[in-house]
Amino acid sequence: MDKYGFTFIGCDAAYGEAGTVMFGAPFDSTTSFRPGTRFAASAMRPDSSGLETYSPYQDRDLEDIRVHDGGDLLLPLGDTPAALVMLEQYTDGILADGKLPCMIGGEHLVTLGAVRAAFKRYPDLHILHFDAHTDLREQLLGVTLSHATVMRRIWELVGDGHIYQFGIRSGERAEFEWIREGHVTTCLHGFDTLPQAVRELRGKPVYFSLDLDVLDPSVFPGTGTPEAGGVSFRELLDAMLSLSELDVVAMDINELSPPYDHSGVSTAVACKLLREMLLLFGK
Amino acid sequence: MDKYGFTFIGCDAAYGEAGTVMFGAPFDSTTSFRPGTRFAASAMRPDSSGLETYSPYQDRDLEDIRVHDGGDLLLPLGDTPAALVMLEQYTDGILADGKLPCMIGGEHLVTLGAVRAAFKRYPDLHILHFDAHTDLREQLLGVTLSHATVMRRIWELVGDGHIYQFGIRSGERAEFEWIREGHVTTCLHGFDTLPQAVRELRGKPVYFSLDLDVLDPSVFPGTGTPEAGGVSFRELLDAMLSLSELDVVAMDINELSPPYDHSGVSTAVACKLLREMLLLFGK
Amino acid sequence: MDKYGFTFIGCDAAYGEAGTVMFGAPFDSTTSFRPGTRFAASAMRPDSSGLETYSPYQDRDLEDIRVHDGGDLLLPLGDTPAALVMLEQYTDGILADGKLPCMIGGEHLVTLGAVRAAFKRYPDLHILHFDAHTDLREQLLGVTLSHATVMRRIWELVGDGHIYQFGIRSGERAEFEWIREGHVTTCLHGFDTLPQAVRELRGKPVYFSLDLDVLDPSVFPGTGTPEAGGVSFRELLDAMLSLSELDVVAMDINELSPPYDHSGVSTAVACKLLREMLLLFGK
Amino acid sequence: MDKYGFTFIGCDAAYGEAGTVMFGAPFDSTTSFRPGTRFAASAMRPDSSGLETYSPYQDRDLEDIRVHDGGDLLLPLGDTPAALVMLEQYTDGILADGKLPCMIGGEHLVTLGAVRAAFKRYPDLHILHFDAHTDLREQLLGVTLSHATVMRRIWELVGDGHIYQFGIRSGERAEFEWIREGHVTTCLHGFDTLPQAVRELRGKPVYFSLDLDVLDPSVFPGTGTPEAGGVSFRELLDAMLSLSELDVVAMDINELSPPYDHSGVSTAVACKLLREMLLLFGK
Amino acid sequence: MDKYGFTFIGCDAAYGEAGTVMFGAPFDSTTSFRPGTRFAASAMRPDSSGLETYSPYQDRDLEDIRVHDGGDLLLPLGDTPAALVMLEQYTDGILADGKLPCMIGGEHLVTLGAVRAAFKRYPDLHILHFDAHTDLREQLLGVTLSHATVMRRIWELVGDGHIYQFGIRSGERAEFEWIREGHVTTCLHGFDTLPQAVRELRGKPVYFSLDLDVLDPSVFPGTGTPEAGGVSFRELLDAMLSLSELDVVAMDINELSPPYDHSGVSTAVACKLLREMLLLFGK
Amino acid sequence: MDKYGFTFIGCDAAYGEAGTVMFGAPFDSTTSFRPGTRFAASAMRPDSSGLETYSPYQDRDLEDIRVHDGGDLLLPLGDTPAALVMLEQYTDGILADGKLPCMIGGEHLVTLGAVRAAFKRYPDLHILHFDAHTDLREQLLGVTLSHATVMRRIWELVGDGHIYQFGIRSGERAEFEWIREGHVTTCLHGFDTLPQAVRELRGKPVYFSLDLDVLDPSVFPGTGTPEAGGVSFRELLDAMLSLSELDVVAMDINELSPPYDHSGVSTAVACKLLREMLLLFGK
Repeated sequence: MDKYGFTFIGCDAAYGEAGTVMFGAPFDSTTSFRPGTRFAASAMRPDSSGLETYSPYQDRDLEDIRVHDGGDLLLPLGDTPAALVMLEQYTDGILADGKLPCMIGGEHLVTLGAVRAAFKRYPDLHILHFDAHTDLREQLLGVTLSHATVMRRIWELVGDGHIYQFGIRSGERAEFEWIREGHVTTCLHGFDTLPQAVRELRGKPVYFSLDLDVLDPSVFPGTGTPEAGGVSFRELLDAMLSLSELDVVAMDINELSPPYDHSGVSTAVACKLLREMLLLFGK
Repeated sequence: MDKYGFTFIGCDAAYGEAGTVMFGAPFDSTTSFRPGTRFAASAMRPDSSGLETYSPYQDRDLEDIRVHDGGDLLLPLGDTPAALVMLEQYTDGILADGKLPCMIGGEHLVTLGAVRAAFKRYPDLHILHFDAHTDLREQLLGVTLSHATVMRRIWELVGDGHIYQFGIRSGERAEFEWIREGHVTTCLHGFDTLPQAVRELRGKPVYFSLDLDVLDPSVFPGTGTPEAGGVSFRELLDAMLSLSELDVVAMDINELSPPYDHSGVSTAVACKLLREMLLLFGK
Repeated sequence: MDKYGFTFIGCDAAYGEAGTVMFGAPFDSTTSFRPGTRFAASAMRPDSSGLETYSPYQDRDLEDIRVHDGGDLLLPLGDTPAALVMLEQYTDGILADGKLPCMIGGEHLVTLGAVRAAFKRYPDLHILHFDAHTDLREQLLGVTLSHATVMRRIWELVGDGHIYQFGIRSGERAEFEWIREGHVTTCLHGFDTLPQAVRELRGKPVYFSLDLDVLDPSVFPGTGTPEAGGVSFRELLDAMLSLSELDVVAMDINELSPPYDHSGVSTAVACKLLREMLLLFGK
Repeated sequence: MDKYGFTFIGCDAAYGEAGTVMFGAPFDSTTSFRPGTRFAASAMRPDSSGLETYSPYQDRDLEDIRVHDGGDLLLPLGDTPAALVMLEQYTDGILADGKLPCMIGGEHLVTLGAVRAAFKRYPDLHILHFDAHTDLREQLLGVTLSHATVMRRIWELVGDGHIYQFGIRSGERAEFEWIREGHVTTCLHGFDTLPQAVRELRGKPVYFSLDLDVLDPSVFPGTGTPEAGGVSFRELLDAMLSLSELDVVAMDINELSPPYDHSGVSTAVACKLLREMLLLFGK
Repeated sequence: MDKYGFTFIGCDAAYGEAGTVMFGAPFDSTTSFRPGTRFAASAMRPDSSGLETYSPYQDRDLEDIRVHDGGDLLLPLGDTPAALVMLEQYTDGILADGKLPCMIGGEHLVTLGAVRAAFKRYPDLHILHFDAHTDLREQLLGVTLSHATVMRRIWELVGDGHIYQFGIRSGERAEFEWIREGHVTTCLHGFDTLPQAVRELRGKPVYFSLDLDVLDPSVFPGTGTPEAGGVSFRELLDAMLSLSELDVVAMDINELSPPYDHSGVSTAVACKLLREMLLLFGK
Repeated sequence: MDKYGFTFIGCDAAYGEAGTVMFGAPFDSTTSFRPGTRFAASAMRPDSSGLETYSPYQDRDLEDIRVHDGGDLLLPLGDTPAALVMLEQYTDGILADGKLPCMIGGEHLVTLGAVRAAFKRYPDLHILHFDAHTDLREQLLGVTLSHATVMRRIWELVGDGHIYQFGIRSGERAEFEWIREGHVTTCLHGFDTLPQAVRELRGKPVYFSLDLDVLDPSVFPGTGTPEAGGVSFRELLDAMLSLSELDVVAMDINELSPPYDHSGVSTAVACKLLREMLLLFGK
């Protein structure tokens, strides 16, 4: 008897057989504006049934690869350091088994946990970061582990020249001044300089982090900090498809906040982008 | 590593070990007013994490019994007879294995599938039916298999004197005239005559069908046909707790429509009632 | 005393005087993801008062033509064949009276009923189909009459070379392989090849079917299966305006699902497109 | 071919044949908190299809009486005096034709227009007023024609001892002091003194005005100024049923605000109460 | 020129002149189910304009007392200990100035900060706690400072016999076993034993903590963890009015979550209860 | 202790020190379709905390200028002439003090009040008007002071050649005929002729009125009369940035209707545009 509703569409491989492992990171304790991203993965699983497993963009089908859905981790909301340790350990296990981790946030801070694991195995790790916000603050109201500081913390790990940001259109004046000092490569508003970045990143281990608020709020209203002036779905998809030859060793998709997605459209967009990510980089 | 999000809370027993099997019946093709009950079970699973496994009403815990969550059946929306056959067969398998079936609708018509299976094994089957609507029409716009006719179809199986209805407050004039002919026992508005029914049903095989719109729309807005003047949560819970000594051989809970439950409160109510049903009758 | 609220704006001609007859087809029993399109026409009528009867795009006014609003047909939800017969008969009556039928779905399957009527009168009928989805499946979960199979059923009527699809961006692998066999003409993502299609269709009887999910979900969230990557309102409107010289003998607009249109914006978009369709092809 | 969606359920009599005429008064220009009641009647018409024409409370059917639905008047939003004149004239016409007017607000100020017409024909007119708010202010921010002053304006017409209020639980200190001076009869919170009022009103011409916010916001969230501590649906219905022997010469039901009724439950409650009002007092 | 929109209605006294100081505690980092209570105070301020300053229940007006609205504290989301220190210090300052603190949560954990301040000044402090949940866990997923543990942490301060709970209907089995050991006084479901508690508390310094989910979800859907079977508004209000002679030295109202309050009704209920609290205990 | 929530972000200058004064005009009594703009300013203040004070578009920060937030005026809903007088007087006071007024509507009619004040001081006042609708009707249902007539009333003040409209795509046939007579300069759909208008307006006193429904409803669903086919956020922002050298003596931003902005995205867009307006023209 067929059943459905338990995993993301087409991701029902057993862990042992899988080449890719997706899992939910339901954590949003440091979100400073509108919380709710903790529910992203559990909202995406049932709604993925509105999607086909086949992508006409790539002429590829989820049935061609083997993805395991590891469920949502039980993270301790309110204890940020402990949550990051759990994410690092779970990601580390997937990497140790030679599989590709694909994390579904959660707020953007969860990226720090997964990057820590990837950085241990790939000391030359580069970060490819699509986002509306710089996420480069030194601290926010005294908090150093925050969705608003996550890229600064990651920079402390990977160092100058290892972070490439695209779609950025919001931040404090001090962050933009720090960017101009040359620590990271930041492309405002869209993807104009992406082709050059792809050339530079070829052959290097890449962590791909997709903050969905890089999309315009018209396309993606269901997020914590909607920021007008973003890219369209086709601009984002085309940018992603241009990454096909990169060596992505780990990846995440984050900042879908279902409580603000009354029409379900943002969840549908996130599901489609996750399918494309899995088909692009999945094994 | 702990994970969550796949089953209803506390219902993670394997099928072989389980005494009770719950499953979703995502079908609402004959709904005449507001559709959406197909999403009930898939909405209840993640939201059940807002609930405890322990009931202070019964001083009992879901950890004390063994429930398997069979997922949602893949029903052919648009083909009513075929969907009913699938529901009958799946329920029949559970009964054949000596387990208690607990179906989560879907519209109320799904009850017909499960009742057919139970009636085959229990020819003296009695129906205990909580609902706002009589569901006793002969047909609706020419359709004989409909949420509005389901109890009439069941009466054709079980015959006079085998159906007890409570909470009824809506129907056509012809239905109320048919009731007065004595085919079924109907208690208007609430549960005044429930104690007598419980006495009459003791020792007999009972199918318990809970249409959640028996609740007042203030308590349960997320349903297809909200009907004002219903019972409160405590009235319903007390009525259910009074059934503890009945021999319930199969049961269902239906008519939660998540698209109309913007606050999530109806889903929370349904989850709590399902927990109490499982603790009352589950094995 | 003036009154309002009963018909679509500017469509209050009596049937006998009308050149065009619009009517609602409130049917969505086979919808596989999110139902609710049954409410489209009844939501569009009152909200059309937010619109002007005058179109600055065409410099034409609904007061220049005579449209009758036939209301919503009372369709038997749950009995797909019977519903299609009713739609065919009602459309046939309009055609017999020399008027232009304009059907408001409902799910896309309703198109089959109207096409059957038009095909009887116009054996060389061609279908111009704007949609996100191919709708070319052989069956869906065993169901052959489904919103996902409607164009395949229509192809069985009209044959190879008579269906032109635009805006397509979703389907199963098998559907795209079938397309490549040449049975239908399919333009992916947008309207690139529409000018050629218009040239080919000139002088032939055309049925125009507008599935509103051809629009990007940012423009049209209120639909059953939102599919990212669609066209903008201006792209769709320009495509429609380019059809002005075609001989459209019947038409429909479908897949607005008001329960998912919390802001009312999708209903407003549908109303505006219906006005433009009426002004383009109406008599 | 049957059609639906144009009138309130069971209210399709022609004006000439009707004993009762219902009409919408879509006006809310003076609403001081949350506007939107202008959409009440146009939301109630299609949603009334979720209701039966038969009432098990009264064992009566809308098919037993003849009600005409006059549609929504086209009122000049922003010009309060002119709107009241239109309402007075339309009500006057219905009374002149020997029919019972049943107005669907709109904000509560619309009652003033209808009362003016009724008072002209019935100089001893008494007002039976169910509401959460006193509506007895002398002015609000300098505005004398306001939903917050409507009963004070009516009192200026009908005089001391002609207004009976029930369910009241909100107002300014000055209003309660004015009440204690004995101008009107006010029953706080519920209907404790209703039996006595019914005795006093017997044989007199009565205008019945039902402000739906007399209901608790749990039962009726979709209103402009929700005020906690109100009556339940059954308390309100029982109170209404106790009025059956009064000589109601005109009536209204008002303050449903569909933009705040996301679940549709308030609209369903309003529809059911309107059905009961029509069955109680309709001809 | 009059202006509005900045403070809660009737709470515009300067700090120096005030007898009572209300302030928002926008913190919900440890919320385990649905977050959003951080927005409670900022949603209540503008919506309070739908309310009168006069209470017919108490025949008292906010204009009779002097309340200062201290705004929302800028709390470090994600750093629980630091947030609690800020809340303790701010409350301590108000108490040092001889004023009554009234905190608007936020999740229930914020109570710990305010209680710490009150306990320093009132070593015999007693806690009067209205809630659906026991909040007595030792830890939740390893987190000891949590909304689910707050009363256990407070018990560690104030000791056995100093906490009185009412309305409780949810918790783990272990929590109910701990309650039966006699550490706290817990009344299930409602307020049956409140009169005795009031007698015992008379003359003692009392901290009153109102978790709004003590209300039934029908009355109060806009909360993080709706728990069916709660009290009605009138039951809660009557319980509160019975406290009038207690010596309340500090108080809070918490767990309103505006993102789940689509109709605004929960916010209106919270505003009305806050008005009554201020009128009951305010100076 | 820091606090927040009272003013728009970065606008906490005292009146005396401010170069710019923003204030809310909560009036929507003449709105003919969907009301609710009265809540715009009170919704924008708390949500502005999701925004930075720094604009990467202009490399300028709100901390560089001094803006006072004057709160919302207490306008008499239902008395249009009186409300306009209050708006004129308040604007006049700001101008008299040598400051820049920035009004937040409200419906578009509020512009008339502010323009009257500006016109008194600047007899050669020109109006720069971004909108979807012409707003040039002579009257609407007999009402001459209406959101649909506001630009006609302003034209009666400023005369031919003083009004420039952009983004227009809706109106009655008569309005477009009147436009063609040359009274105003109207650019359909977008900003094609804006550069020429900027050249013509240089050196003249300009009132800038931004009706947010100039944006496409995908970008801005939360408005009273959504009109498909509008401009994107980037198109609008670029148009605004091209105005930097104009002499704007007063300005407004209007038609945000929070009750229709369930996702909060429209409010976020309005906040960002207000920030850019303040940085462009503020002192």
